[in-house]
Amino acid sequence: MDGESETTASIVDGVRMRLMDDWRILQNVFKLVQREETICADPQQWQQQKIVDFMQPDELKEKETSTLSDIEEICQQVIKYSVKTSHGRFHNQLFGQMDPFGLAGSWLTEALNTSSYTFEVAPVFSLVETEVISAVCRLAGYSHGDGIFAPGGSASNMYGLVLARYKRIPSVKSSGMFGIRPLVIFTSEDSHYSLKKAAHWLGIGADNCIAVRTNAKGQMALDDLEGKIKAAKESGLDPFFINATAGTTVLGAFDDLDGIADVAQRYGLWMHVDACLGGAVLLAYKNRSLLKGLQRANSFAWNPHKTLGVPLQCSLFLTNESDLLARCNSIEVNYLFQQDKFYDVTYDTGNKSIQCGRKIDAFKFWLMLKARGYGLYGHLVDHAIEMARLLEQKLRARPDRFRLVLDQHEYSNVCFWYIPKAMRVPSSEENEDWWARLYTVAPKVKEQMAYSGTLMIGYSPLSSRQLGNFFRMVFTCFPVLEAAELDIILDEIERLGEL
Amino acid sequence: MDGESETTASIVDGVRMRLMDDWRILQNVFKLVQREETICADPQQWQQQKIVDFMQPDELKEKETSTLSDIEEICQQVIKYSVKTSHGRFHNQLFGQMDPFGLAGSWLTEALNTSSYTFEVAPVFSLVETEVISAVCRLAGYSHGDGIFAPGGSASNMYGLVLARYKRIPSVKSSGMFGIRPLVIFTSEDSHYSLKKAAHWLGIGADNCIAVRTNAKGQMALDDLEGKIKAAKESGLDPFFINATAGTTVLGAFDDLDGIADVAQRYGLWMHVDACLGGAVLLAYKNRSLLKGLQRANSFAWNPHKTLGVPLQCSLFLTNESDLLARCNSIEVNYLFQQDKFYDVTYDTGNKSIQCGRKIDAFKFWLMLKARGYGLYGHLVDHAIEMARLLEQKLRARPDRFRLVLDQHEYSNVCFWYIPKAMRVPSSEENEDWWARLYTVAPKVKEQMAYSGTLMIGYSPLSSRQLGNFFRMVFTCFPVLEAAELDIILDEIERLGEL
Repeated sequence: MDGESETTASIVDGVRMRLMDDWRILQNVFKLVQREETICADPQQWQQQKIVDFMQPDELKEKETSTLSDIEEICQQVIKYSVKTSHGRFHNQLFGQMDPFGLAGSWLTEALNTSSYTFEVAPVFSLVETEVISAVCRLAGYSHGDGIFAPGGSASNMYGLVLARYKRIPSVKSSGMFGIRPLVIFTSEDSHYSLKKAAHWLGIGADNCIAVRTNAKGQMALDDLEGKIKAAKESGLDPFFINATAGTTVLGAFDDLDGIADVAQRYGLWMHVDACLGGAVLLAYKNRSLLKGLQRANSFAWNPHKTLGVPLQCSLFLTNESDLLARCNSIEVNYLFQQDKFYDVTYDTGNKSIQCGRKIDAFKFWLMLKARGYGLYGHLVDHAIEMARLLEQKLRARPDRFRLVLDQHEYSNVCFWYIPKAMRVPSSEENEDWWARLYTVAPKVKEQMAYSGTLMIGYSPLSSRQLGNFFRMVFTCFPVLEAAELDIILDEIERLGEL
Repeated sequence: MDGESETTASIVDGVRMRLMDDWRILQNVFKLVQREETICADPQQWQQQKIVDFMQPDELKEKETSTLSDIEEICQQVIKYSVKTSHGRFHNQLFGQMDPFGLAGSWLTEALNTSSYTFEVAPVFSLVETEVISAVCRLAGYSHGDGIFAPGGSASNMYGLVLARYKRIPSVKSSGMFGIRPLVIFTSEDSHYSLKKAAHWLGIGADNCIAVRTNAKGQMALDDLEGKIKAAKESGLDPFFINATAGTTVLGAFDDLDGIADVAQRYGLWMHVDACLGGAVLLAYKNRSLLKGLQRANSFAWNPHKTLGVPLQCSLFLTNESDLLARCNSIEVNYLFQQDKFYDVTYDTGNKSIQCGRKIDAFKFWLMLKARGYGLYGHLVDHAIEMARLLEQKLRARPDRFRLVLDQHEYSNVCFWYIPKAMRVPSSEENEDWWARLYTVAPKVKEQMAYSGTLMIGYSPLSSRQLGNFFRMVFTCFPVLEAAELDIILDEIERLGEL
């Protein structure tokens, strides 16, 4: 063909003719997912299957760069050395095992490979996104709700900040923040780091993200909040935004939303709730009161990919200021959001978004809700929280070997120390040195966890309490654990702790 | 169990006991992907299979809310009414058919469901991400390269802006943009709208995103760029950033990167290249010169999910200022990026990112490259561009029925008008009214495309040239088209144009 060299033409022909054969790779991947214990969801197999076959980065790199020619062989190796996050003993992150219906939805959207921006290329998925957002708004008690799926909780929190800033000073959209009074935001010292990062990106500055002290339960201290707002005003700053947290990253604490709403109202501040972790409580029966006051917040973020087991990523930003999202984020885009289309273009949701192309994150969640119903997830959330309380009991029943960080956590996180045999001393001898040594235990046990592959639980320090490393066990809807499993977990920590 | 009501306990038990059966849903989805023509990649079937079974939003909504009880039935319906973007006659967006190896990689990462932030939970995928970034830096001629996968091109362009701002005024990270001289950025009038949106979000302001005129080929006019930088400086503004475009959204034009680099150097501005569309040329043999000068840019963005056929999303941000990304975006995060881990924590890439949880977007691309090799994609990119030139020839060969927007485009976009029978008049009668009518043709033909489901090509106006709607045909690596297919496409437009 004109202009195209013979080499290019014959190579290209080769690809074209093999292409239908290439699609068989999906069959191979499907077999691998079943055969190679990629998922490890079956409780019968938890004892036999490793969560991870851990190798140090340099060792693993050597494996990787060896000349594997066969794609199936490569995929087998990738599975072998990857972490099996759906293994029932993976409790290392705020997400756990996937819901199978979630993965089914995810595979289907991947196979249909489209973008959320217009009804034109995502007709079904546009409606699905709208439906999920409406449902969540109803659950939250938002009568003028609107929302968007965002690429993770950090982005969802940024949406809140941008909306609040736009409402306070609309001209920022066109003229920027030059020459205005310094804006400041408030969030608790135990809240997620994304608020600080967002303050940096949005030009507010990380230092203008003011950390409010937390109380004994890990909640934002209302008096400190109010004091810091007043102080900021007095020093000529412009407070405009409070971030409350529903489910802090480490302790799982829920801020007093009603109390914060009162403060926000009193000072005319936008109230956003980072409910990325704790939003799942929207569906719960017994624990719903943890979110009391949420309906008074101007916006909130929720990641159903955490507690609920929706595959990563699934993050929602919701606001009760109906048309603000579109007004704030839209600009004229002629090539994509044409106004002379042959259908109702209000179904093109893309212009509410800071993204252009956008993954279909709503469908997998929607399919889960269709498959099981909202109520069922409510019971699973209650059960996960119940398991957390039961673990606390079991930890208290082994007082020489374990120590709780909080007597009772509010959500499905449980934070605790393991005390190795050699450190079991009378409480009078638990001095500063003893504690300093205790803080080094979790990283060591964690290393044993990785090498044995039998259990994965994260650890963390907590600077707001000047506490060193402790374990943070996180319960999620999946795996659906039974009480006996908790003893297995504690026994395994004890075993690994003495290796 | 204590505290848990009988209802919750029995419902939860039910879920637990059915869970291993639920996993069979993957088998059903796998069957559907094959049976229900979800992919439609087979050229033998293009004539028989519809790209979309279009319904207006309200009609479709009714379908959806009907009480489908069976999940498989729901999935069937979702497939039926979704757009088959991998159908060989879908040319509606800047992305086209997927590479099967890309989808295989995507299914595998979805099944392993993890996040890119740490080596701990993504050992293989962390190495893979690093490997892909290094390879792309080498291709781009970056000797001090670093990068990150971002959720789409808009986010990747934001990374460039944030890095440039941080380099110019490091204190913005901590103190924000209050009280500093207004920052301004420059981008061509034909460039992507994400720059304007980013300017809004980052607090720079959309009006401080200054549009530079384009020349006859659709490239940024260097004299206008320089004039506008000077004018901005004279009026007390602080120019700090030029965005060049490699592959504009509509015309596919490539800015003169070397020329822009000269200007950037002269005025001490950060040069970023939005190569989201045109970055694929990095792999090409014959068309590599389109990116001449890229190595002089401080950063660039590239979406392999466009031309190359990687499933959505796959977007890279690259910079040649090695350690700037980490310095700019990191903050201390004790619960996730602990420094006392048992492996080399420089493999934890999460702190370079504005996201916390982050999808594994590198692996599907890496697997494609393993399966076919870089060189092969180079030939496919050259072939896609060659097909675009051939389409131009074929359009010129039907001068009464088609009209090109540019005589010759540079990349794989081809923009043209269709002239319906009733409008075929002597050129002397092609007056303003005639053109106004011509601009209404594409939306009408597009409607017929949707209802017939035989072909999907996007349309767009181009305000920089005061042009009304025309078709924008986009060639991508997949489907691998033959010359004869181009006649089928033009014949089909003619057929639909007379309905």
